[in-house]
Amino acid sequence: MAEEPSRGLADVVAAATALSDIDGRAGRLSYRGYDINDLAGRASFEEIAFLLQRGHAPSRGELDGYRAELVAGRGLGSLALQDLDGVARYEQPMEALRSLVSLGSADDPDAESNDPAANLRKAARLTAQQPVLIAAYHAARTGRELPDADPSLGIAANFLMQLLGARPKQRAAEIFDACLVLHADHTMNASTFAARVCAATLSDMHSAVVAAIATLKGPLHGGANEQVMRGLEAIRQVGGDPLEAVSSQVSRRLGQGEKIMGFGHRVYKTEDPRATHLRWMSAELAIESGDDTFYRMSRRMEEVVLAEKGLYPNVDFFAATVYHYLGIPTDLFTPVFSASRMAGWTAHVIEQHADNRLIRPDSEYIGESGLSWVPIEAR
Amino acid sequence: MAEEPSRGLADVVAAATALSDIDGRAGRLSYRGYDINDLAGRASFEEIAFLLQRGHAPSRGELDGYRAELVAGRGLGSLALQDLDGVARYEQPMEALRSLVSLGSADDPDAESNDPAANLRKAARLTAQQPVLIAAYHAARTGRELPDADPSLGIAANFLMQLLGARPKQRAAEIFDACLVLHADHTMNASTFAARVCAATLSDMHSAVVAAIATLKGPLHGGANEQVMRGLEAIRQVGGDPLEAVSSQVSRRLGQGEKIMGFGHRVYKTEDPRATHLRWMSAELAIESGDDTFYRMSRRMEEVVLAEKGLYPNVDFFAATVYHYLGIPTDLFTPVFSASRMAGWTAHVIEQHADNRLIRPDSEYIGESGLSWVPIEAR
Repeated sequence: MAEEPSRGLADVVAAATALSDIDGRAGRLSYRGYDINDLAGRASFEEIAFLLQRGHAPSRGELDGYRAELVAGRGLGSLALQDLDGVARYEQPMEALRSLVSLGSADDPDAESNDPAANLRKAARLTAQQPVLIAAYHAARTGRELPDADPSLGIAANFLMQLLGARPKQRAAEIFDACLVLHADHTMNASTFAARVCAATLSDMHSAVVAAIATLKGPLHGGANEQVMRGLEAIRQVGGDPLEAVSSQVSRRLGQGEKIMGFGHRVYKTEDPRATHLRWMSAELAIESGDDTFYRMSRRMEEVVLAEKGLYPNVDFFAATVYHYLGIPTDLFTPVFSASRMAGWTAHVIEQHADNRLIRPDSEYIGESGLSWVPIEAR
Repeated sequence: MAEEPSRGLADVVAAATALSDIDGRAGRLSYRGYDINDLAGRASFEEIAFLLQRGHAPSRGELDGYRAELVAGRGLGSLALQDLDGVARYEQPMEALRSLVSLGSADDPDAESNDPAANLRKAARLTAQQPVLIAAYHAARTGRELPDADPSLGIAANFLMQLLGARPKQRAAEIFDACLVLHADHTMNASTFAARVCAATLSDMHSAVVAAIATLKGPLHGGANEQVMRGLEAIRQVGGDPLEAVSSQVSRRLGQGEKIMGFGHRVYKTEDPRATHLRWMSAELAIESGDDTFYRMSRRMEEVVLAEKGLYPNVDFFAATVYHYLGIPTDLFTPVFSASRMAGWTAHVIEQHADNRLIRPDSEYIGESGLSWVPIEAR
């Protein structure tokens, strides 16, 4: 018999995973047993993508081989390239990525295979291509040439270079690399869960990842980091003292029962450990930028929301100002999130295919019953 | 605390719905309170799409207005049209639909709005476009011109005309219309669930429907009808008496523990009520075609599987021969399923957005713990 409905499946175990684990009470997140506090700033995104997709921390030789696979795999497919201009003109960023990744399967020789080796190859290619797609999309919509990828640069530095047109400073690349690590996986978040529901029909990895991108697009999921930045910008534009503007606006909105984006999380009951790292990254980049206003506004907002609602910032809150200080356009924040989460999505597809069972829940019927159909002539 | 893991969420209630209800023990399916036995052959697909999306059986005036909206909405978007040839050449049918529907949002004026009125308009357009996209894809890959849509024909007859290049016989159109009705909705099946997981992040309807198409693509879900047909064709090609070939092959495969596609269902413990209708449709079309071999093979297969495993045919089993006798190419069976299920998917998105809560389940962690990260230099 079906159980009582659980709205939103909160606390319902949907799948087993060896990829990541959250201790919501203690505020801890780990990837395959490694605490992210141990990884942030100490492991590269390439190492973490390897760890998630291939199951263990790579040796030097394995990492060199994986990096070579990423460099070789980052070329875009012919359909995606051919459609880039049209897509960039008519679709907003996450819409465009949904289309471009879907078109990308046409050029992937393993597209229709769920074979474990094929899945590993596709996971590397999809992880390599996602940041290039974002930079290519941005170049197309702004009428610029996409700079050639630099095989000597890692994913983080190469992305900033291709997006912004100049080789990033070393600290900027290091901090962005750590951002990618922090966003790489997070148990059964909605987009990852969508990828697993898709993969569990034995659909292919591109399909699962397209479903994940479609899901990350939502403002309650990946869209939150962009809204945090737009909120800060809107408050600053009001004029006057920006910290006072934060205090009064946030208090007023909380008083009206509004939600403040970037705070609270279904799983964490204390501070999201990713926020801890993103906070100091934001501070460092703020100082480097010469204008720390958005950082100070964020800190004030954090104080007000904690005092009035007892809510802690989540991963989206300080990611917003970090991306901003790195020079990433605000409407590309969610795409950048996808470039990182691609490592986790693909690893979850590999895990789902390796021990598959269809994910097909039940529903509670709340409609009418026993109606008789009257043909249209008699209605 | 998280509960014990339920593999595949079987019997876990993931959402409430007023759209469809299944009584698996009695073998009953209803749409908004109307038993499908009361609808099959008596209600048109347009009436059922209206019923699901707009909440009640349409009056004559409402149905006329909805039909006009469908006719006006079936034009394909500029990006989809522009990319049709490339997509048709390089992507298989469900892959292509995933890309084409994603590209379609570029031309939808309501693409980014989750407003109830916008969702209703998009639901009608997506329902109108899906069969046209399939016919256009087939025309492009076979190098033919897509026949102009005929505004005087309903969705079923117009699809067969655009796909096959000739106006269908009245009974063929009627039977196909009833097929569309039978496949329109089915509670929390995997693709519908994927659409709801996506929509629950407040992502948009195109995104949710793309996630659903990606999920229906899997051989454990929408892909099953195609595999049923390929199985029948493979047995027939062996030569000899086709009924004896069915008996011996199916017995042998069941004896080896293999699964026979088209049998059994997680929810129905007796015959799937849709199979009952599809069986007689298959019989009628078989006789009309002058070659009832596939129908008789299906009946024999049904007898063997029931006798040896106690499993009943599901919706995919007789849909295969029905589509075959209608002249639909085998690799378009799953796309045709999507054309029907689009009515349900869009209605579920409307329902999810109307009373939303993020769908974010928990997971059981089964990996290692407490590992210490050793920097690559020391590994």
